[in-house]
Amino acid sequence: MGASEQGAGQRRERFERGMEVLTRVDGEGGQRVVDALADISPELAHQVVAWGFGDVYSRPELASRDRQLVTLGMLTALGGCEPQLEVHINASLNVGLSPVEITEALLHSAVYCGFPKALNATFVAKKVFGERGLLPVTAA
Amino acid sequence: MGASEQGAGQRRERFERGMEVLTRVDGEGGQRVVDALADISPELAHQVVAWGFGDVYSRPELASRDRQLVTLGMLTALGGCEPQLEVHINASLNVGLSPVEITEALLHSAVYCGFPKALNATFVAKKVFGERGLLPVTAA
Amino acid sequence: MGASEQGAGQRRERFERGMEVLTRVDGEGGQRVVDALADISPELAHQVVAWGFGDVYSRPELASRDRQLVTLGMLTALGGCEPQLEVHINASLNVGLSPVEITEALLHSAVYCGFPKALNATFVAKKVFGERGLLPVTAA
Amino acid sequence: MGASEQGAGQRRERFERGMEVLTRVDGEGGQRVVDALADISPELAHQVVAWGFGDVYSRPELASRDRQLVTLGMLTALGGCEPQLEVHINASLNVGLSPVEITEALLHSAVYCGFPKALNATFVAKKVFGERGLLPVTAA
Amino acid sequence: MGASEQGAGQRRERFERGMEVLTRVDGEGGQRVVDALADISPELAHQVVAWGFGDVYSRPELASRDRQLVTLGMLTALGGCEPQLEVHINASLNVGLSPVEITEALLHSAVYCGFPKALNATFVAKKVFGERGLLPVTAA
Amino acid sequence: MGASEQGAGQRRERFERGMEVLTRVDGEGGQRVVDALADISPELAHQVVAWGFGDVYSRPELASRDRQLVTLGMLTALGGCEPQLEVHINASLNVGLSPVEITEALLHSAVYCGFPKALNATFVAKKVFGERGLLPVTAA
Repeated sequence: MGASEQGAGQRRERFERGMEVLTRVDGEGGQRVVDALADISPELAHQVVAWGFGDVYSRPELASRDRQLVTLGMLTALGGCEPQLEVHINASLNVGLSPVEITEALLHSAVYCGFPKALNATFVAKKVFGERGLLPVTAA
Repeated sequence: MGASEQGAGQRRERFERGMEVLTRVDGEGGQRVVDALADISPELAHQVVAWGFGDVYSRPELASRDRQLVTLGMLTALGGCEPQLEVHINASLNVGLSPVEITEALLHSAVYCGFPKALNATFVAKKVFGERGLLPVTAA
Repeated sequence: MGASEQGAGQRRERFERGMEVLTRVDGEGGQRVVDALADISPELAHQVVAWGFGDVYSRPELASRDRQLVTLGMLTALGGCEPQLEVHINASLNVGLSPVEITEALLHSAVYCGFPKALNATFVAKKVFGERGLLPVTAA
Repeated sequence: MGASEQGAGQRRERFERGMEVLTRVDGEGGQRVVDALADISPELAHQVVAWGFGDVYSRPELASRDRQLVTLGMLTALGGCEPQLEVHINASLNVGLSPVEITEALLHSAVYCGFPKALNATFVAKKVFGERGLLPVTAA
Repeated sequence: MGASEQGAGQRRERFERGMEVLTRVDGEGGQRVVDALADISPELAHQVVAWGFGDVYSRPELASRDRQLVTLGMLTALGGCEPQLEVHINASLNVGLSPVEITEALLHSAVYCGFPKALNATFVAKKVFGERGLLPVTAA
Repeated sequence: MGASEQGAGQRRERFERGMEVLTRVDGEGGQRVVDALADISPELAHQVVAWGFGDVYSRPELASRDRQLVTLGMLTALGGCEPQLEVHINASLNVGLSPVEITEALLHSAVYCGFPKALNATFVAKKVFGERGLLPVTAA
C-alpha cells in the first residue's frame, strides 16, 4: 500500500470517527452542515468533522454534557452565531442537559456577557424547545 | 421601620447572601475585587456581589461546577478578560473541576474560538495551576 | 409576615420599579420582550426588568439621555445586537435625543468600531426612523 | 474663490476619487450602499467613500487583491458583518482572487476564529458564488 | 500653485484642524500617540488626527461631551482597548463629564457588556482618577 | 503493526509535517509556544502544530504570504491577541511581506475595525520591527 493511499485511508478514518461522534451529538443537524458545504468548501466540512469531532470532541477527558456547557457559553459570548447555537442547543438536549439547565446557563451568561447576548441566545433556545415540544420551561 | 430603612436592609441582605456565595466559590479573590473597587465604584462591587452572586449564581437550577464550565467558555470567547479568567480558573478548581477537565475545556474552546483565544486562556490556567502546585497536568 | 413572603414582596417591588422605568424609556418595546420570554425564561425577563432597569437604570447618577448614548455605543460595538439596537434607538428618541444626534453618534462610532458595525447600526436607525416618520434626517 | 467654496471643492474631489475606486472594486454594490444611506446618513456614505476608499484604499502601498485578503480576515473575525462580507467577496473576485483562494482563506480563518465564524463566512461565499455561476468550487 | 501642492496643502490643513481638536479634547495624550507612531506608521497618525478628529469629531452635530459617552461605551464593549480607554477617560474629564458620571456610565455598561468588561474599564478609570487626585469618587 | 501503534505513527507524522511548516513560517517563535505548553496542555500544542500547521497551513490552495495577510486581519479584528500578532508579524516578514505592506495592512484595518484595534496592532509591529532593526519604516 503506497504512502498516499495510506494518507487517504487515515483521512477517511478520522472523518468517519468524527461523523460517528457528530451524529450521536447533533443528530441530523451535523449531516445537514456537511451537505450544505459540499459545493462550496468540502474541505471545511471535512475539518469540522475530522478535527472538531473526530480529534477533539471524541477525547474522553471531558464529558459530552460538559463540552456542551462550555460551547453554550462560547457561542453566546461570540455573538452572531445563532445557526451554531441552534445546532448546539439541540445537541445539549441530546446529551442530557435539561431545558431548565440550558435556560439557566443562558441566564448565567447575562452576568458575564450582558443582557443582549443572553437574550439572543435565549430566543434561539425558545425556537429549539418549541420545535421539540418542550415549552413552557418549568422550574425543576 | 421606615420604607428607606427597609430598602437598606434588603440591599444589605442581598449583598450578604452574595458575599457568602462569592467567598465559597472564589475564596479570597472575591474580597480582593470588592476591596479594589472601594474608592472608585463601590456600587459596581455591590452589584457584582448582590446581583451576580446573590441573585444569579446562588440559584439552584444549575450546579456551581456547571456554571464554571459555562463561564470558562464565555471568558475565553470574550477575550481580554485574563484577570477574570484567573479568578474563575481558581473558582473552577474550588468547585470540583479537575486540572484535566479545565485544560480540556480550553482545548475544546479552540474549535469554536480559534487557537489565539484558547492559547491566551491556557496560559492563564498555567499561572493558576503553577501557584497551586498542580503542574504538570497529567492525563486522568 | 414570614421571611419568604417578605422576600417575594421585595422581588415584586424591584420588578415593579423596573417596569415603570422600562415603560417610560422603551414604551411598548419593553413589555414585548417580557412577554416573549414568558414561556422560555421568565427569570431572565425578571432580571432584565428588576436589575437592569429597577436597580441600575433608575439611578440618578447619569441622565437617561446619557445612558442611551453609552448604550448606542455599546450595542454598535458588540455587533449582532440589532434587535436590542432597535429597542434602544426608539428609547433614544423617547428620552430626547434627536435623529441628527443619533445618526451622528453612529457616524462617530465608525472611528472606533470601523464602518461595517457603523453601517449595520445606521440601517437599524433607518428602519426605526422610517416607522416613526422621521426620514429623511436633515441637518439641525 | 472663497475658503468655504474651496473646502466644498476638496470634499467633492475626495468623494469622487473614492467613488472611482469603490466602483472599480465593488461594482454596483458600492453605489447601492451610498443610495441606501441617502435619507438616513448621507455623511456616513460620504465618509465611507471619501475616506475609506478615496484616502485609504487608493494608496499604492498595498495591492487591491491583498487589501481584500486582509478584509476577508477582518470581516470573518468581527462576526455579524454578513452584508459587508457579501460586498467584499464580490470585490475579492473582481480584483482577481479565485474562488479556490477565497474558500481557502475562509478555511484558514477557522484556525484563528473557530468554526462558527468560518462557517458563517463560507455560507456568504456560497451565496455570492451561486449568483455568479461559480459553484461548485473545484480544486485548482 | 500646482494640483499636487494644493493636495499637500489640503492634507496639512485637515491635519491641523484635527490636531487642534485632539489637543483640546485629549490634552498631551493625543500628541504622545502621534509621536509614538512617527517611526512605524506616520500615515496612521495622520489619519487618526485628520480624519478621526479633523473630519468627524469636529462636526457640530453632537457635543464633545456626548461623543465621549458614546466612546466610553464602545471602548468598554470592544475590550482589549485599555490604552485608548485611558486617553478617553482623561478626555471625558476634560470635556466636562464628572467622575460620578463616568463611573456610572461604566456601571451601566455591565448591563449590556457583562461584568468582566465593566470591571476592566473601571480599573482604567481608577488609574486615571488616581493620577488626577480624584479618588475616592463620592456620590454627587 | 497494531492499530494503535499505527494511530500513534499517524499522529506523530502529522505533528512532524506541521512542525516543519511552523518552523519555516514562524522561526523559533513556534517552538517557544510548544515548549511553553509542555506542562499545562501538550495536547493543545499538538493540535496547533498538527492541525493548524500540518493539516491547514500546509495546503497549497493559498500562498503562505496570503495566509499571513488574512491572519493579520483576523488577529487585529479579534483584539487581545497581541502575543499571537507578535508571532505573526514576524512570520509575515519571514514569508516575504515588506514592512511597508504590513503597516499598510494595519492602516487598512482601521477602516473595518476602527482606530483602537489598528493602533494596538501597529504598536506590536513597532516592537517587532524594532527588534529586527527595521525602523523607521519608509515609503516604498
